[in-house]
Amino acid sequence: MTEKRSLNKLAMGAVKQLVKNSDALRVKIHRDKSKTTIIDCGIEAPGSLEAGRLVSEVCMGGLGTVDIGTTAVGEHFFPAARVRTDDPALACLGAQVAGWSIKVDDFFALGSGPARALARVEKKLFDHLHYKDTHNEAVLLLETRTIPGSAVCEHIAEKCGVTPEHLHLIVAPTASIVGSVQIAARIVETPIHKLENLKFDPHKILSGTGITPIVPIARKDNRAMGLTNDAILMMGQTFFYIQSTEGDDIASLIEKVPSSTSSSYGKPFRQIFKEAKGDFYKIDPGLFAPAMISISDLRTGQFHTAGRLDPELFLKSLETSLD
Amino acid sequence: MTEKRSLNKLAMGAVKQLVKNSDALRVKIHRDKSKTTIIDCGIEAPGSLEAGRLVSEVCMGGLGTVDIGTTAVGEHFFPAARVRTDDPALACLGAQVAGWSIKVDDFFALGSGPARALARVEKKLFDHLHYKDTHNEAVLLLETRTIPGSAVCEHIAEKCGVTPEHLHLIVAPTASIVGSVQIAARIVETPIHKLENLKFDPHKILSGTGITPIVPIARKDNRAMGLTNDAILMMGQTFFYIQSTEGDDIASLIEKVPSSTSSSYGKPFRQIFKEAKGDFYKIDPGLFAPAMISISDLRTGQFHTAGRLDPELFLKSLETSLD
Amino acid sequence: MTEKRSLNKLAMGAVKQLVKNSDALRVKIHRDKSKTTIIDCGIEAPGSLEAGRLVSEVCMGGLGTVDIGTTAVGEHFFPAARVRTDDPALACLGAQVAGWSIKVDDFFALGSGPARALARVEKKLFDHLHYKDTHNEAVLLLETRTIPGSAVCEHIAEKCGVTPEHLHLIVAPTASIVGSVQIAARIVETPIHKLENLKFDPHKILSGTGITPIVPIARKDNRAMGLTNDAILMMGQTFFYIQSTEGDDIASLIEKVPSSTSSSYGKPFRQIFKEAKGDFYKIDPGLFAPAMISISDLRTGQFHTAGRLDPELFLKSLETSLD
Repeated sequence: MTEKRSLNKLAMGAVKQLVKNSDALRVKIHRDKSKTTIIDCGIEAPGSLEAGRLVSEVCMGGLGTVDIGTTAVGEHFFPAARVRTDDPALACLGAQVAGWSIKVDDFFALGSGPARALARVEKKLFDHLHYKDTHNEAVLLLETRTIPGSAVCEHIAEKCGVTPEHLHLIVAPTASIVGSVQIAARIVETPIHKLENLKFDPHKILSGTGITPIVPIARKDNRAMGLTNDAILMMGQTFFYIQSTEGDDIASLIEKVPSSTSSSYGKPFRQIFKEAKGDFYKIDPGLFAPAMISISDLRTGQFHTAGRLDPELFLKSLETSLD
Repeated sequence: MTEKRSLNKLAMGAVKQLVKNSDALRVKIHRDKSKTTIIDCGIEAPGSLEAGRLVSEVCMGGLGTVDIGTTAVGEHFFPAARVRTDDPALACLGAQVAGWSIKVDDFFALGSGPARALARVEKKLFDHLHYKDTHNEAVLLLETRTIPGSAVCEHIAEKCGVTPEHLHLIVAPTASIVGSVQIAARIVETPIHKLENLKFDPHKILSGTGITPIVPIARKDNRAMGLTNDAILMMGQTFFYIQSTEGDDIASLIEKVPSSTSSSYGKPFRQIFKEAKGDFYKIDPGLFAPAMISISDLRTGQFHTAGRLDPELFLKSLETSLD
Repeated sequence: MTEKRSLNKLAMGAVKQLVKNSDALRVKIHRDKSKTTIIDCGIEAPGSLEAGRLVSEVCMGGLGTVDIGTTAVGEHFFPAARVRTDDPALACLGAQVAGWSIKVDDFFALGSGPARALARVEKKLFDHLHYKDTHNEAVLLLETRTIPGSAVCEHIAEKCGVTPEHLHLIVAPTASIVGSVQIAARIVETPIHKLENLKFDPHKILSGTGITPIVPIARKDNRAMGLTNDAILMMGQTFFYIQSTEGDDIASLIEKVPSSTSSSYGKPFRQIFKEAKGDFYKIDPGLFAPAMISISDLRTGQFHTAGRLDPELFLKSLETSLD
């Protein structure tokens, strides 16, 4: 178990900017009774593109760069999240994955960000990463439309082993500007998560970069969830530099990565979700992947690529998710 | 009347960089007899791309990010201004609009930038914005080929309510590198200006981003004016996040925004200007708009888009503006 | 002989980041017996995209901006180096050109970066540039797979007129992440070098920007050399702003710049190199140029463009260089 750099400490730079420039970033700072700082990025405050960019960098534990560019989809034009990291395993799996289910009384939300590496509730994943953070400050993003109360703050702080006043909770609904940006910024995380499920050791991935459209904001969170997912599934592109080891068959592995390899692929996510009667666990987890992936393998000198963009299907999703 | 953040104070960061790094940025600093600082970005000094980028951020009162990327137009390749702001009303209308006519003796130029919010000569616009700056430093960009004299400096300082030594004037001709960059960087301002003329309250626009080609430098200012305008009219793309209010009909409104909705659209601007015998007021003001605009409305969850890129017409303008 | 700004001093900012953040940047710092600092970016340490970006900015003597974006090639998607400089002559010829052959005992490597402007071994070039650096620190990139020994360090330090402890040597093989990035970042340098060979005074080039794909990493350095060259030759795009002088015939000159004007053009570089039996001097030097170049001439107001992208040939090179 190495203790390497602290993801929470690295993320605090962007957290402090969110607090200091809250007016310009259109976020609202609450001080909970427990003394936890809650940064509202889309519930009572509208949030902003720059807040979305900063929150995305916080979610990657300060180990990724997120830039807001532009991209064309057919004749359409969208803002786009451009992500880069030289530590994909730690930035994406150690911090960015929305893998911590927070359930306290009536409150439920998925938690993402570096606090997960303090709490280590996802024990198997963190054992596999050989990573444990020991910093005295914790930062967690909750994708929710409810400001968490003191019981939630205290629960999270306790799990992280920090005092509630050293906990920063960022909250943003899926259907918000910040929600739209931070999900698009998962373009490098999504394929790493899938590769890990395919038993590929994420530590072999040296560097990654990717781009996805930042989608328009839906009125309801479940529609936003559909459209933000579809942007990655149908228009997301990722490029990895890896160092494989003897015996790895990257040519076969990569063929299993793109979203289009899933039997569920081919319709707007909103429709898939309806057909699954809103039960996430009935949806093929293999669907959650970018449209395209390319891999440069430093050991073999080979280049692999799989999948393709699907602008028609994305524009169909745009139409049906926002109707 | 709120006093919010000071546009002039925020812009001073980039102004100081222009002064401090004048050699590397290829700009020339004059100290006028009135003690006003004049930053020449294209008259006696050639200017640079980075100076253009900084001047563009100054023009947006420090509330916008301007990045120089690249864009393809047909088989051509151009540098491009990529602009983003989370306060479009203040950044664009409060600062960036070239709305202040400076006329002192023989000197005439349009003034753009945050000093306008101190002078408030455009009273109606600033009353509408509910904004007044009260900072003791003022920054104005003059699109001109003449270094302004003391009378001009003193006139502007007086109107801004600052001493002449606290005034910074940036000067750049249309036909210069800085001119070409700072006009391309108006890609978010141009549609806000048009939306305001269409009676849409700019405060409803939460965030905006856009991209336009930075055009080659013409030999004469009127040709440069034609080509820089055409880049926005034919190749400019803007994306807005808005919060509409009950009764707003964004679907109809957006159809009126793109440049192609103007009866004057369809020829190089240089030709339109000639046909109007050089009289701006004979040209449909509705022409000044980007080629494409998209709007994500957070209230309704709807997505609207109008207009289209017109690379053939832009390349025709390129040919005829630079002959 | 002007002494202007010091390229070595300007580059030290990024050098210090490489040393300070060596862990995160995955580079390895050696202190040679001679006290020279050696920054290994791809021999015993794998390097990273961000290290590649920083090394590229070091190579340009701190006078260029290198950004890692993305670019499409046919249906493929690659990271891309986007380069911008407002001092192309000094940044590219004065620093970036890999023009200094370092040969000490068995060690051989081409040296690139600002130390060249202290050593001035390429006397003719630096006389032509009218530039001499006199800083007491020197920075040189060696494209090599061998960590240089004390004799090499002492030789370079002596030629630069600095003590060995004030010398920083960056080492990176061609077939490494840093190698792939820093060669792609030569997209503005390559055409300046060619223009200089065509007897065009590089001081007339005011500003330049360009973009090239960052290619996958080959297994062997000679294959990496082929593919990185081909990215520039077949997919590289450069845009210059120049101030020509009376008598310059830019329309004719530009037609000679693109790689496709060379009789050697039309096959993967690896094949050309084989046919030349590995003898560089048998290859037409005119081949080393971007696929496309555009020039905006401020004196005449004219716009010139030559060459075209060749994605099919680039993808063929990708296939044959990485087999």
